[in-house]
Amino acid sequence: MTTKPWSGRFEKETDPQVEAFTASIQVDQRLARHDIAGSVVHARMLGRQKIIPATEATAIVQGLAEVWQDIQAGAVQFSPAMEDIHMAVEALLAEKIGPVAGKLHTARSRNDQVALDIRLFTREAIAATVEAIRELQAVLVRLAEQHGHTIFPGYTHLQRAQPVLLAHHFLAYFEMLQRDQARFREAYARADVMPLGSGALAGVPYPLDRAWVAQQLGFSQVTTNSLDAVSDRDFLLEYQAAASICMLHLSRLAEEIVLWSTPEFGYIELDDAYATGSSIMPQKKNPDVAELVRGKTGQVFGHLLGLLTLLKGLPLSYNRDMQEDKPGFFATADTLLASLRVFAGMLATMKVNRTRAREAAGKGYALATDLADFLVRRGLPFREAHRCVGELVRYAASQDKQLHDLTLEEYQRHSSLFTSDDLGLTAEMSVAARNVLGGTAPGQVAAQIAAARRALEEARPLPAPDLDPRHLIDRTAS
Amino acid sequence: MTTKPWSGRFEKETDPQVEAFTASIQVDQRLARHDIAGSVVHARMLGRQKIIPATEATAIVQGLAEVWQDIQAGAVQFSPAMEDIHMAVEALLAEKIGPVAGKLHTARSRNDQVALDIRLFTREAIAATVEAIRELQAVLVRLAEQHGHTIFPGYTHLQRAQPVLLAHHFLAYFEMLQRDQARFREAYARADVMPLGSGALAGVPYPLDRAWVAQQLGFSQVTTNSLDAVSDRDFLLEYQAAASICMLHLSRLAEEIVLWSTPEFGYIELDDAYATGSSIMPQKKNPDVAELVRGKTGQVFGHLLGLLTLLKGLPLSYNRDMQEDKPGFFATADTLLASLRVFAGMLATMKVNRTRAREAAGKGYALATDLADFLVRRGLPFREAHRCVGELVRYAASQDKQLHDLTLEEYQRHSSLFTSDDLGLTAEMSVAARNVLGGTAPGQVAAQIAAARRALEEARPLPAPDLDPRHLIDRTAS
Amino acid sequence: MTTKPWSGRFEKETDPQVEAFTASIQVDQRLARHDIAGSVVHARMLGRQKIIPATEATAIVQGLAEVWQDIQAGAVQFSPAMEDIHMAVEALLAEKIGPVAGKLHTARSRNDQVALDIRLFTREAIAATVEAIRELQAVLVRLAEQHGHTIFPGYTHLQRAQPVLLAHHFLAYFEMLQRDQARFREAYARADVMPLGSGALAGVPYPLDRAWVAQQLGFSQVTTNSLDAVSDRDFLLEYQAAASICMLHLSRLAEEIVLWSTPEFGYIELDDAYATGSSIMPQKKNPDVAELVRGKTGQVFGHLLGLLTLLKGLPLSYNRDMQEDKPGFFATADTLLASLRVFAGMLATMKVNRTRAREAAGKGYALATDLADFLVRRGLPFREAHRCVGELVRYAASQDKQLHDLTLEEYQRHSSLFTSDDLGLTAEMSVAARNVLGGTAPGQVAAQIAAARRALEEARPLPAPDLDPRHLIDRTAS
Amino acid sequence: MTTKPWSGRFEKETDPQVEAFTASIQVDQRLARHDIAGSVVHARMLGRQKIIPATEATAIVQGLAEVWQDIQAGAVQFSPAMEDIHMAVEALLAEKIGPVAGKLHTARSRNDQVALDIRLFTREAIAATVEAIRELQAVLVRLAEQHGHTIFPGYTHLQRAQPVLLAHHFLAYFEMLQRDQARFREAYARADVMPLGSGALAGVPYPLDRAWVAQQLGFSQVTTNSLDAVSDRDFLLEYQAAASICMLHLSRLAEEIVLWSTPEFGYIELDDAYATGSSIMPQKKNPDVAELVRGKTGQVFGHLLGLLTLLKGLPLSYNRDMQEDKPGFFATADTLLASLRVFAGMLATMKVNRTRAREAAGKGYALATDLADFLVRRGLPFREAHRCVGELVRYAASQDKQLHDLTLEEYQRHSSLFTSDDLGLTAEMSVAARNVLGGTAPGQVAAQIAAARRALEEARPLPAPDLDPRHLIDRTAS
Repeated sequence: MTTKPWSGRFEKETDPQVEAFTASIQVDQRLARHDIAGSVVHARMLGRQKIIPATEATAIVQGLAEVWQDIQAGAVQFSPAMEDIHMAVEALLAEKIGPVAGKLHTARSRNDQVALDIRLFTREAIAATVEAIRELQAVLVRLAEQHGHTIFPGYTHLQRAQPVLLAHHFLAYFEMLQRDQARFREAYARADVMPLGSGALAGVPYPLDRAWVAQQLGFSQVTTNSLDAVSDRDFLLEYQAAASICMLHLSRLAEEIVLWSTPEFGYIELDDAYATGSSIMPQKKNPDVAELVRGKTGQVFGHLLGLLTLLKGLPLSYNRDMQEDKPGFFATADTLLASLRVFAGMLATMKVNRTRAREAAGKGYALATDLADFLVRRGLPFREAHRCVGELVRYAASQDKQLHDLTLEEYQRHSSLFTSDDLGLTAEMSVAARNVLGGTAPGQVAAQIAAARRALEEARPLPAPDLDPRHLIDRTAS
Repeated sequence: MTTKPWSGRFEKETDPQVEAFTASIQVDQRLARHDIAGSVVHARMLGRQKIIPATEATAIVQGLAEVWQDIQAGAVQFSPAMEDIHMAVEALLAEKIGPVAGKLHTARSRNDQVALDIRLFTREAIAATVEAIRELQAVLVRLAEQHGHTIFPGYTHLQRAQPVLLAHHFLAYFEMLQRDQARFREAYARADVMPLGSGALAGVPYPLDRAWVAQQLGFSQVTTNSLDAVSDRDFLLEYQAAASICMLHLSRLAEEIVLWSTPEFGYIELDDAYATGSSIMPQKKNPDVAELVRGKTGQVFGHLLGLLTLLKGLPLSYNRDMQEDKPGFFATADTLLASLRVFAGMLATMKVNRTRAREAAGKGYALATDLADFLVRRGLPFREAHRCVGELVRYAASQDKQLHDLTLEEYQRHSSLFTSDDLGLTAEMSVAARNVLGGTAPGQVAAQIAAARRALEEARPLPAPDLDPRHLIDRTAS
Repeated sequence: MTTKPWSGRFEKETDPQVEAFTASIQVDQRLARHDIAGSVVHARMLGRQKIIPATEATAIVQGLAEVWQDIQAGAVQFSPAMEDIHMAVEALLAEKIGPVAGKLHTARSRNDQVALDIRLFTREAIAATVEAIRELQAVLVRLAEQHGHTIFPGYTHLQRAQPVLLAHHFLAYFEMLQRDQARFREAYARADVMPLGSGALAGVPYPLDRAWVAQQLGFSQVTTNSLDAVSDRDFLLEYQAAASICMLHLSRLAEEIVLWSTPEFGYIELDDAYATGSSIMPQKKNPDVAELVRGKTGQVFGHLLGLLTLLKGLPLSYNRDMQEDKPGFFATADTLLASLRVFAGMLATMKVNRTRAREAAGKGYALATDLADFLVRRGLPFREAHRCVGELVRYAASQDKQLHDLTLEEYQRHSSLFTSDDLGLTAEMSVAARNVLGGTAPGQVAAQIAAARRALEEARPLPAPDLDPRHLIDRTAS
Repeated sequence: MTTKPWSGRFEKETDPQVEAFTASIQVDQRLARHDIAGSVVHARMLGRQKIIPATEATAIVQGLAEVWQDIQAGAVQFSPAMEDIHMAVEALLAEKIGPVAGKLHTARSRNDQVALDIRLFTREAIAATVEAIRELQAVLVRLAEQHGHTIFPGYTHLQRAQPVLLAHHFLAYFEMLQRDQARFREAYARADVMPLGSGALAGVPYPLDRAWVAQQLGFSQVTTNSLDAVSDRDFLLEYQAAASICMLHLSRLAEEIVLWSTPEFGYIELDDAYATGSSIMPQKKNPDVAELVRGKTGQVFGHLLGLLTLLKGLPLSYNRDMQEDKPGFFATADTLLASLRVFAGMLATMKVNRTRAREAAGKGYALATDLADFLVRRGLPFREAHRCVGELVRYAASQDKQLHDLTLEEYQRHSSLFTSDDLGLTAEMSVAARNVLGGTAPGQVAAQIAAARRALEEARPLPAPDLDPRHLIDRTAS
């Protein structure tokens, strides 16, 4: 137990159990770099604005450089008595440079400081996420290019519905990820606002240069209401909502990977490097990566819910509840990034069994809609054509026949519009016929691929300003 | 029980219990207008593209006009046997115009049809939500203007922290709603994409003019991957995530309304028209509106979670699970809109007790930070100034004195930097001193008000294209 | 708008928008029977205790009988101006018997009244749920009896793992439902506590006979702390938690029904009466019931979450937020009951394709563990046996052979412990070998079936006391 | 990277990224003791049943003792290459005793092994939770005893409603915790079932003595369906549901602690050892412990949701998704235990300001209901008495008077039933009048206290069998 920097007003020391319960250092030490980066710029600004003497500002930033060096070297042992990363850094700084360290917190509160730190972290997390999304999208586009003519069974209700091109299927996920990217970019814009200078809640009584601080830390905006600035965690909620939707997309692909890997479907085989075995059953090759992504999705939803619930009904401005915004957020950020990356490798290395997919695509009366459309083109209202073909399917199933096995006589028993038993019904024909914008015909899919490739090339990485404390010290030295 | 339009392939009729279990008509009849609007434009397009004869297209749209008239007149009794709004409209149409009604479903599936209907509904819901947000923001700006000089106790940890202007507090909520607006506008853009033409999953084998359909229904884009188009509910998730965050903001304001209405705080009094009484306690005047908004927030979170969970792990493309996307979504849309509107009225009519707020703002050692900053300006490191004032506060509390009650001698016992006992410490001084961008000083707040007013004026309503089936029939008649 | 019964203290009437926003009558009218039942017994008790004259008590209960008759006859039109079911019933009563109706609310608050009503409803809901669970269990036991020798592929990671008996698989769900039953029974015990007499929060200043009220309404206990009694919704949370777990079990079975219905798996065929078709694809026969149950599960989770969030952080005692406890709860109760019932029908009518299941169970190296266990019995450590058989499987797969296709020479190349190529490896042998308590051997499964049947027979229905207001009037007439 | 024990069937090594992604050792190393305890008993049983030679069984258990010693001594460095705690222990054992270690996994799969480990952990977690609940309850009973006559303002809608005894208020929380205890005890019963012997999913082909294993590990039952046994996580869901409800109760108390600590309410003062200060505002004393408990509640809900979502729709039997059941569960178990314990300390040390509470309890027309009941006793129907007193309150408020300030003439202007202006209305009278079972009258509360104390004494700790591997080795040596 150590004497707390805020203990002036207190007569007793904090109970050790309370110290352990309230400390966040085990979680927020992850923000050390961001915290020190913010402190470097804050100290420089205090010096520039003559709020503290320039020499003291210099002493502080140099001390911070040393603290950062120690942390990087693993020479710092964080303990609950340090409360949080902010107090820890200040205490470490005081060990280096003595009482002048006490000037760093001038015109600043932990409330605006932690808001700064998480915003810096969020910005980086979003930039990395968007990059990982793009890499996964690149894999999907390559797969689409490889499978621009691979016939695949399309499903609704997990029943074979109509044949599609496998490229078309991969591009559906490309689209989802494209929307994910857009959501993350928008979330970035709202995270990219600089809160320092909001003080505890009301602003500070010092002539700060907030714009300069924002510029040095690479922010494009400055918060304009101090009460909101210390209370706002919208950017974390947005990140987590976007992450939940993105994990949802991965979980759908995961479900398909699991299904397609079964011997029953058998459309793909995962690479040995992306599957694992059983401790007891020697034959097993399990799609663990896909299963885990599907399983982790639940946790990501839970963290979103946890933060929504935490913030619900909190009066302004800062409340200690908000300290608990970090564990779930960090877990989500890690999970999403790892999931995106491991999926890219898994998809890039899996093998597709084209023969088996082609075979499945043509069976199970998957061409029945085409037959109905054939009748429609001969003038039958769609609803009647549907009924007629439905009966034909029922008849064929009762005879254990496929549609192309039926004789002309059998066809005509259901509709006189059939004038030949060679209807040219193939999966290829079916696919080619869907030549409408967004449809699965080869030409449409080729256009989708081209557009996807273009989108990939045009997407620019999000800015991820350099927050290395030493670089900031150099850059802000005038 | 009626014979189902898809019953060709079936030997038995649906079990009545199953019929009731699977029917969605009780929920989705709310989409009648959207469904008919979509059908009008679809039929017109089929005619224009000569997929069906022009005269039949005309017969269909006129029949649809009659169906819509019947529905509006309350002359239609929807029953579970009708399954859903799509089948119901087709059945009603057939009663009007006979078998040619069966041509309406040409080149269309319920999968792309329902995607269209919900997107149309979502667009309207978002437009209405944004409008309601703006109205609430307008009330907040008016309140800020009225209270540009009202001193109010600012809280952290629900302890009095520092005085603020009440205007500043109201503007914090303006900021939150400003971000809400931005999120809804972005969600609108992703909802504003036309899916019809995607068929069941693979596109359709007819020469559709999807761009024309989009244009008539006021969409700015067309979906480009049919598998994705029928599987995608991102726009609903986004709406619900944005709604959850917006309700969260309202719930925080609700908490404050409840607190401020207590006799203990006593900062506001709700208008009689916005409060209710007790069945047993005659004296009670309860802030029910605020409590209900806070309570409804939980449900809105639950609906978001429900939809995320529903979609998690679903393989492509359409699965019947997705029918359950509507109950929670409709409930959320209704709740959010009603909450925004009733809050506008509640805030506009409440009375603020300025005297009481002013009094509270100056008490409880709320000016201690100012005292520390005073010492900092005299050269003491902030950390030491904090400790010194902390001890001073502890001393004052032990004497049951406020800071301004202390004598110079008592001040100097804690620091020789005090040279007068008239430190000019008032809530007004404290507020005025926080003259930093985003701070609570009157000039800063006035600038925030001006910016808020500007933002309100510049915000343009979202497009809410007219979907009245009769108007669409007129507009699409060439 | 009508004058509110609590309006004495108010100068203005409630704003109509507020009236609509705060009214719960559209939701809680469902509690009419429970509310009137409670009022009948309360009035009788007031008379017996001479808190009101016996003649007035009689007038009140007779008036209540008429009100109930009107409601049952559909002659009552509930409107938002009536606020809630409690006020509505009192107002209707006043129309029947005049000002003496105003005595019914003596020694009662809506806070304890609504607690009573929901507890009565919850008790009934749980009793019905347990009954529906038992019926579904009965179906499962019948299926197990039919399939006591049906070989079925057992899966882990959705990969064929080891053969099991299909009976064993059905009984796994029996076990889950058995735990569900236990949870609901425990939840019942905590709902079965009578709260009336707690007043608004502090008890009432009248000599009530709470035990008599409890007895008449069939409660086994009486609440013992009035503050807790009006604040407590644990029983709703418990119901919803138990319902979430039960729906989770159904969703797992639903997933299997969907999988087994695919042509790829093909182990079952749903009855036509329990499947539905497609609006566009004539061949489709979709497992909609299973999909919908899976989809509705998300909503049930959402409602649990919604109620947890609603209650989180509420100070004692009653807060208006709690009015929002009902929509989600009613929705969950309806969903769960309907899902259990429709599943019973769906399972009872589906056909199992034994041939196909048997075939799948023997393929895919599903007997590899048996081979490893063979080597273990010859002395090899399990870990080495596992490795040896793993390599054997890899070799066989590379040769496109099943294990029983390998020659002795091929076996011996992997281990000299193989002394014959006739290892008697069949799915039947594999199943029979797992003759351990809880294992899939026929004898074990037969014992499980017998135990299940016994448990079914021993399970007693939960008490569902008769709450018909007329019967209560008769029963309480002394 | 190391060669995996299941790698026989694989040609390539696992990708390092996949190894890191799929490893659970960082999380499940926490189960080391439970895992080794299970292995000790399993090995002993294999020896007793002559499935492996007795000498080998002895070698294994002695090796396990050494492994446990190394782990306890911190001499083991767990790495992702070890996959999980099960494989890690087996690998460590092999280092100690060579290939015979490979016999430990005979007749066992990781699927039943992990089910065993979590059940052992859950049992301990529940036992510790119930103990912590009882300690917190003991504090509440002591507080109730101290405040058996402390008048306190009772609230509904956070408006002063009626006076109560503070003891009554504390006992409301005692009741909640009593229900929590019951739920945890029931959850314990369902966790207390021994799954080992279920193998991967189908049971094992060895003559196990499952009952003996259960007995040694202190289980009261054995699972009876192997498929269910490896798929079932109901006990985790139940634990988390019970934990969510318990945290909900704590969050309500936390909200009250935060409110009561404000200067506006001012009913309590937390001990310095249970509060913390501000980094910037020297005067602050914040109720951080209460805020953190309230904030952590959101996460606990999120983890429940996460697990429900994870399991939803999973086919039988084991799927890798289930590995993700642990992080949220462990976090919840830690949070709940710490919260219960720190709350006990916080409540035991806080000071109650009786004067202030008494004063508040008598003001704000909190006795209006008593006045209405006075009129009722004089024969007025309650509804009219309510209206009359409502108007009286409105009148008094308009005159800025309390009820006891009114003159007889003023009273009589509202009802002629008032015959004296000395109505004896005091908070003490009001409290004493509520002398009904569960009411707040001193006698009733004293009875509640006595019952609570009895319940505390009668509650027996849950069994927490000793799982120390060395003790188990000794105990199972025959």
